[in-house]
Amino acid sequence: MKYSERTISSEYLYQGRILKLRRDLVLLQNGKNVFREIIEHKGAAACLVLTPENKLIFVRQYRHPYKEEILEFPAGRLEKDEEPEKTIIRELQEEVGIKPLKIEKIGRIYPSPGYTDEIIHLYFTENYQNFISSLDEDEFLDTLEIPIKEAFNLLEEGKIVDSKTIVLLLKCKDRLLGRFK
Amino acid sequence: MKYSERTISSEYLYQGRILKLRRDLVLLQNGKNVFREIIEHKGAAACLVLTPENKLIFVRQYRHPYKEEILEFPAGRLEKDEEPEKTIIRELQEEVGIKPLKIEKIGRIYPSPGYTDEIIHLYFTENYQNFISSLDEDEFLDTLEIPIKEAFNLLEEGKIVDSKTIVLLLKCKDRLLGRFK
Repeated sequence: MKYSERTISSEYLYQGRILKLRRDLVLLQNGKNVFREIIEHKGAAACLVLTPENKLIFVRQYRHPYKEEILEFPAGRLEKDEEPEKTIIRELQEEVGIKPLKIEKIGRIYPSPGYTDEIIHLYFTENYQNFISSLDEDEFLDTLEIPIKEAFNLLEEGKIVDSKTIVLLLKCKDRLLGRFK
Repeated sequence: MKYSERTISSEYLYQGRILKLRRDLVLLQNGKNVFREIIEHKGAAACLVLTPENKLIFVRQYRHPYKEEILEFPAGRLEKDEEPEKTIIRELQEEVGIKPLKIEKIGRIYPSPGYTDEIIHLYFTENYQNFISSLDEDEFLDTLEIPIKEAFNLLEEGKIVDSKTIVLLLKCKDRLLGRFK
């Protein structure tokens, strides 16, 4: 790599429940030392679920950083060393009450590469069994089924802002809108 | 809001150069108290720049959280209370050496709403003057012009992973590919 930075020293400033904050002293190309502030996160997985009625399953939940309720596709954090596919299958059962029979990998995103090492793995399913949902007792959210075209209208109107949800919607756009041709 | 959480107490655990870490004790719907770990970030702005030769301007830079060089559209962090449009105009001058004559708002994303309050504002320009770039002395990056179709191939191959860049590419897809019809 042309511009890699050598780490001179590294310290954890905080080790919490969902993230760690690390500060590295690094050596730049010009010989200078600077601090880099890094959020360590175990990663996450999210899924676009297409129902037989051509609807998409969303969850609406309160997100404390924004103090807003926002629309997202179902998702969850990886447990330590967990395969992302296992994470999303568990989360779909818990949050939405479905058990995918087939799940397709759509890609992955780096949500904000300047300061977090999180990777969000993206999936698609339209082939699943209904199941009983089992939210954690501290988890509060509604699930909604939104028709495909209405979901794209919401995106157009700026009412869907979550990055993983937008990327999944747009990466699957041709396939989803192809249902109406 | 149905599921809002009342903040009982709030403390800063770290106040750094590009982010702050805050921990809030909140009251859940079920009467329980839990901690929320929140990254405060001033926000950012990014831009898709379309050249007269139907190329897109990317920057390639080392991102320490991933210890990788990645491809992104030009972007920068907001300064305190700054209008995002002012941020992106400044960053385009510094990083890429162009001065937009017209810039269009494309939307905004919440990169990872579980723990960061960052908002990334998205823009498009194809109408600009060339200028002289003036990178900060601690900033190391290459700018590249990539033909539109090649950029979509890179996305398809999983070689573009940055969320703001993917959302901009896909939100502008019809307009970009419309150039070849």
